[in-house]
Amino acid sequence: MSPFRGSVPFTADWKHFRLEHEDGVATLTFDRPDKLNALTFEAYADLRDLLHELPHRDDTRVLVLRGEGKSFCSGGDVNEIIGATLAMRPDQLTDFTRMTGEVIQAMRECPIPVVAGVHGTAAGAGAVLALASDFRIVTRSAKFAFLFTKVGLAGADMGAAYLLPRMVGLGRATQLLMLGDSLSAVDAERYGLVSELVDDDGLDAAIAALASRLADGPARAYAQTKALLTRELDMGLNAAVELDAMTQALLMRGEDYAEFHAAFTGHRAPQWKGR
Amino acid sequence: MSPFRGSVPFTADWKHFRLEHEDGVATLTFDRPDKLNALTFEAYADLRDLLHELPHRDDTRVLVLRGEGKSFCSGGDVNEIIGATLAMRPDQLTDFTRMTGEVIQAMRECPIPVVAGVHGTAAGAGAVLALASDFRIVTRSAKFAFLFTKVGLAGADMGAAYLLPRMVGLGRATQLLMLGDSLSAVDAERYGLVSELVDDDGLDAAIAALASRLADGPARAYAQTKALLTRELDMGLNAAVELDAMTQALLMRGEDYAEFHAAFTGHRAPQWKGR
Amino acid sequence: MSPFRGSVPFTADWKHFRLEHEDGVATLTFDRPDKLNALTFEAYADLRDLLHELPHRDDTRVLVLRGEGKSFCSGGDVNEIIGATLAMRPDQLTDFTRMTGEVIQAMRECPIPVVAGVHGTAAGAGAVLALASDFRIVTRSAKFAFLFTKVGLAGADMGAAYLLPRMVGLGRATQLLMLGDSLSAVDAERYGLVSELVDDDGLDAAIAALASRLADGPARAYAQTKALLTRELDMGLNAAVELDAMTQALLMRGEDYAEFHAAFTGHRAPQWKGR
Repeated sequence: MSPFRGSVPFTADWKHFRLEHEDGVATLTFDRPDKLNALTFEAYADLRDLLHELPHRDDTRVLVLRGEGKSFCSGGDVNEIIGATLAMRPDQLTDFTRMTGEVIQAMRECPIPVVAGVHGTAAGAGAVLALASDFRIVTRSAKFAFLFTKVGLAGADMGAAYLLPRMVGLGRATQLLMLGDSLSAVDAERYGLVSELVDDDGLDAAIAALASRLADGPARAYAQTKALLTRELDMGLNAAVELDAMTQALLMRGEDYAEFHAAFTGHRAPQWKGR
Repeated sequence: MSPFRGSVPFTADWKHFRLEHEDGVATLTFDRPDKLNALTFEAYADLRDLLHELPHRDDTRVLVLRGEGKSFCSGGDVNEIIGATLAMRPDQLTDFTRMTGEVIQAMRECPIPVVAGVHGTAAGAGAVLALASDFRIVTRSAKFAFLFTKVGLAGADMGAAYLLPRMVGLGRATQLLMLGDSLSAVDAERYGLVSELVDDDGLDAAIAALASRLADGPARAYAQTKALLTRELDMGLNAAVELDAMTQALLMRGEDYAEFHAAFTGHRAPQWKGR
Repeated sequence: MSPFRGSVPFTADWKHFRLEHEDGVATLTFDRPDKLNALTFEAYADLRDLLHELPHRDDTRVLVLRGEGKSFCSGGDVNEIIGATLAMRPDQLTDFTRMTGEVIQAMRECPIPVVAGVHGTAAGAGAVLALASDFRIVTRSAKFAFLFTKVGLAGADMGAAYLLPRMVGLGRATQLLMLGDSLSAVDAERYGLVSELVDDDGLDAAIAALASRLADGPARAYAQTKALLTRELDMGLNAAVELDAMTQALLMRGEDYAEFHAAFTGHRAPQWKGR
């Protein structure tokens, strides 16, 4: 979405997760299934950097987050992260915790829609990655667990205490973040945390359908919708309607708006260009 | 609610919708049923102006929005608006998009409760008009569609990306605004977008009952409740409790508060005066 | 949570409700059952002062709010408060209404989790006390009523127009606060206002279970979770993730985080110290 590049090369090889591109869909798969895809310091760093780099590439219209094996992602690794942080100085700790927040902020500011495919468990940071995605396709047997207090930390991790009340309301967010208990997919759907609830064997198909729909759609309209949803959580009504007015006037000069009208009057489907 | 007028006359004849007054209830009916009540530039202008004028009249306690024929309102007209905007300059486009935002802001700032009676389809701007109302009485067969991305525009139109997450949560709002798909009345009720779900033949009666209840109630208390609900979305907790404290102290000097106490101690129903 | 004290003594005797301490749980019982636990001026004052004092004591990990007899709390007393305020000057009225807001602000800023056990009716200020609690354990036959407009006041009382939309969404909050009608426990649960719905004879056991769980848990982690949930409602995303990062880095230097890791690697349950 931003073609402007200077000296920085694109990264050819992401070492701490698997990344595949196909037809405008980038699929990131956490691939430490023997650890339930627990995150390492390096995985966080790669997530942050990928999210900053992806909008500069013109081959990506959607980012999908998946987990290999039994689960989506079990959060920070108990040994490689929790154990390691016990020996860290305050400056090292803040370097780490700030990086985790940068990942979430980059997800929310990324102009590319992010789809999380959640099966098994989304726990700790894994639950927040799902929360910060634009869409959550979730299997019926999946569980979320914002389990931070269970390791002695605040339930407010990586923006969870900002995002979760804005998704499920303050009451349910308090219960989930303070107690850290597991939430079933069915209750998560009832609370508004699930975009699409699917049978356990229907996850691949549902992800493929949504990803290709988003990849083939009006990319700039999607990007602006996401940007304004994100920004307007932090804005007053009067500023929000002004921002909407400017955005729509701009998009009314874009090719996709004219294409809609041409397609509608020509009784054919629009061919979106994303500009 | 504001008796102060200068030189500006009241409008005797609204040409771009039907407006009827009866017993304190103003009923606005979109009356282009052959176009599913699609909005024109002039209808937006009349909406904006009516919402600015209505609070200055002392004959209106409630505003009801209805649609003639098969649907509530299908949003901006494909030919008369979308087609026309294709030929507009940026300054003309922003004149238009800003006007649409002014309508929504005027609805939220209007001290008179607004009741939308939704049947058939509430699409595009029609869905946002319903969203910005205080109450939505919706028939079981009705549908909402925030279909802006389907015409190549941002889902953030007329404050929708501000209002919808605050009504149904960020996750569901993202899905509805990014994809633009139809939402059934039953799901809308589950999400918190429906004040009262009624059978298809029960809409008139439900609107009449709520409108007359609101028209006969403590108008100033309703107006302040609406004003503070609107303002406190954009305020911190400490400012909100101070605003509440000042408001209640003021209303405790009003006639309706004394009337409640006299009625309660006299074992009779209160006669609200709205002051 | 704050051991710093100067000259001010602790209050030995709360005269306007009953307060009992046991195993870290302070249980406050409104005890005017013949008045459905209607609040007096002095009860508000005691609530405000208790909430300021409690965090300075080291014997309290949880505060439970209960009502004696048939109901939780019916709000401000019709005679002792509404009748009395009719004769008050504006400065006296604002002294009162500001005090009621101070109670709610103190509840939200108190680092100790607050659990409301709601049976019978939670009406008016009683409903707002429940709303401002962190957890609401509610019996199936209980009802909420934000009935302020029914006494001629604004539905925005004691922060209700700030808190309720953030818990149940703007649409449902408008309906509840503008009309003031009763809300059943089952609908309240569906709306996200209920943390735990229990049978009428299960309230004591449910409160005891949650209170002892919270009292035995990582108190500092709970306190920070609550503080950030409260603060981040009023903050932008970028500030929120920075606050989270600082908070977690600090807690990673705390004893409970190390205790979690020791317990996990030692295959035993953690012994939380709350520091």
